[in-house]
Amino acid sequence: MNVLKDLAIKNDSKMVLLVMDGLGGLPHEDTGLTELETAKTPNLDALAGQSSCGLMHPIMPGVTAGSGPAHLGLFGYDPLEHNIGRGVLSALGLNLDLGKDDVACRINFATMRDNKIVDRRAGRIPTEECARLCKKLSTIEIEGVEITVVPEMQHRAAIVFRGQGLSGRVTDSDPQKEGLAPLKMEALDEASAKMAEIANTFADRAKDVLADEPVANMILMRGFDKAPDIETVGDLYKIKAAAIATYPMYRGLAKLVGMEVIPTGSTLESEIETLSENFADYDYFFIHVKYTDSSGEDGDFDRKVKVIEEVDLVIPSILELNPDVFVVTGDHSTPAALKSHSWHPVPVLLHAKTARRDSWLSSFGEGQCAQGSLGTFMARDLMALMLAHAQRLAKFGA
Amino acid sequence: MNVLKDLAIKNDSKMVLLVMDGLGGLPHEDTGLTELETAKTPNLDALAGQSSCGLMHPIMPGVTAGSGPAHLGLFGYDPLEHNIGRGVLSALGLNLDLGKDDVACRINFATMRDNKIVDRRAGRIPTEECARLCKKLSTIEIEGVEITVVPEMQHRAAIVFRGQGLSGRVTDSDPQKEGLAPLKMEALDEASAKMAEIANTFADRAKDVLADEPVANMILMRGFDKAPDIETVGDLYKIKAAAIATYPMYRGLAKLVGMEVIPTGSTLESEIETLSENFADYDYFFIHVKYTDSSGEDGDFDRKVKVIEEVDLVIPSILELNPDVFVVTGDHSTPAALKSHSWHPVPVLLHAKTARRDSWLSSFGEGQCAQGSLGTFMARDLMALMLAHAQRLAKFGA
Repeated sequence: MNVLKDLAIKNDSKMVLLVMDGLGGLPHEDTGLTELETAKTPNLDALAGQSSCGLMHPIMPGVTAGSGPAHLGLFGYDPLEHNIGRGVLSALGLNLDLGKDDVACRINFATMRDNKIVDRRAGRIPTEECARLCKKLSTIEIEGVEITVVPEMQHRAAIVFRGQGLSGRVTDSDPQKEGLAPLKMEALDEASAKMAEIANTFADRAKDVLADEPVANMILMRGFDKAPDIETVGDLYKIKAAAIATYPMYRGLAKLVGMEVIPTGSTLESEIETLSENFADYDYFFIHVKYTDSSGEDGDFDRKVKVIEEVDLVIPSILELNPDVFVVTGDHSTPAALKSHSWHPVPVLLHAKTARRDSWLSSFGEGQCAQGSLGTFMARDLMALMLAHAQRLAKFGA
Repeated sequence: MNVLKDLAIKNDSKMVLLVMDGLGGLPHEDTGLTELETAKTPNLDALAGQSSCGLMHPIMPGVTAGSGPAHLGLFGYDPLEHNIGRGVLSALGLNLDLGKDDVACRINFATMRDNKIVDRRAGRIPTEECARLCKKLSTIEIEGVEITVVPEMQHRAAIVFRGQGLSGRVTDSDPQKEGLAPLKMEALDEASAKMAEIANTFADRAKDVLADEPVANMILMRGFDKAPDIETVGDLYKIKAAAIATYPMYRGLAKLVGMEVIPTGSTLESEIETLSENFADYDYFFIHVKYTDSSGEDGDFDRKVKVIEEVDLVIPSILELNPDVFVVTGDHSTPAALKSHSWHPVPVLLHAKTARRDSWLSSFGEGQCAQGSLGTFMARDLMALMLAHAQRLAKFGA
């Protein structure tokens, strides 16, 4: 990291990082083609042969990345060094200020029957419903701690616990599988004992408060953490960076590393419009597309294909802006076949006037990227490559 | 490093490392082919399909290497751990002995008008002219320090300051851009305060001494450093290594890591003759070809192509010697399109009886090497690969 910080220089170049969340996939049984390989992507296919392509490991070979570490990697941080609780990300994305004593966590509304979780997402209740339930939870009072409950999207919400002597090393209550009871939350160190106690009390009260709800009658708590002390991309790379993302968590993550989060609409077209309108004002843009991941998590191969095809349609609008460096990739793989994040390396395409061109590649896909000139590398090296191709890194040594 | 040191064993094998400085390139606008891909290189092309090929990052992905760290990497050292000032390299290449209290720096003769540098290289004055000017500078006396000024090539020279209490953490006077005044040199630590003062005094006196020169009327000083304490390739790898290089800096670098520098003529043919004559006497030969880099730095695509074609012509003479391991590569990329060193990984070809053969490759070039069996790796791993293919590394563990 310090190497890049020492070498980083400013110039007028523009960099765009387009992240299709969970882009990487696995072959369809019938065709042998992944979601990306199945999608009709004439624009990305043409671009691949004019770009440097490769595959990226989000964390390290074989390790499946959560969204937090996966994005930290894309932004040039070593995700093994900076572990950020998802609660913190959610809280930041909801514009909640996190003080140094505050602990954030994330909750799911869930459906419980006979003390067993039967739906960890309470049927993905609508966001408005989530807001109503969060108001109910806000009535819970625990002595010595200020509690803020804020709805996120669908069944998701975040809680910030503010109080003296709180520490965030607390285990989840989410058992991660249906058919099990919520787990008792436990402190992983002495300093977190108070927080664990508060969390268990809160979960008990929540059960009472939600008892009369037909669907979302329980909460699952996870991702307890404090905001980490992290150096910003501005300080590290001398860039003014902007994030264009519709999902709170990704906005939170971007904010955490010092990006400005630009307000945008909920569609891809709106995100690209936001990019275009703000193109003059920043050096680096992180654009996040969520629905590749959620369709993968739902095991919906065809829908993931469709989302990728929709992204392909906006590629010309981005190229029209003539960014000096344009990268298309994912934060991790989410193969529909696995219905979850996976460890498979993620295809990446880097387009720049200063880049070599993999003219032997005919399309943008996992198989083709495996033959690309960038080889297989660590996601945390992507920022260095982007800065280099933007000619923003000075020479190392004489 | 210690792994190799522990495993290295002696045998009778011969290794040859042929480095075309700045070999890696970028595609020509009209053809989409790099300098190496454009060059007619029938010998290297045939060799590629009978060798293991790949791409190497000189330092790390995205980081552009200076010549010093780039060569350290090729010799198996981690360039991030061993930073060597260019002044030290120049001084060593000029056969100047560096004691442990000596500080070396590098100077450029430059052209100054109205206190602004208008040409950082004084029109690349001839080497003889440089020698004359160095004599002028040698008249400068500063109390308590012995000063040796030695001409290098063209506008370049080196100075060694010998005296008690000198330390080399001093900033450059070279502003790196034309149109600016020379910078005041500053000590980066207390121990270097004396050296900084001497350097500034020397620069002032040099201005006076050169005042009547029409072109080279100023010097720019940079790369202050002491010789680092570095373990030799002999100690590390149990090899007797020789360097065949026409440029002083590369001879200096080879000497620094414990290679013997064999006197040679200034042409490529002469270098190969030197190799042939000394082939029986060493285990490892480092042959350096400079003009690929200088033509790249001049932005002269065609001349770089021609230099590569000239190198191709001597390949059969090297193969006739039947080295056990023969590597052809560069220390870094210097694309004519960028007129400077760049971060792009460097093509590498490793030929050995013990090597796999990339029979699917039809030529030696960046695109083909991207598809080679060595993949993309760090230059500092090349020495291990050479030793291994020479069967000079014992098994690790039982």
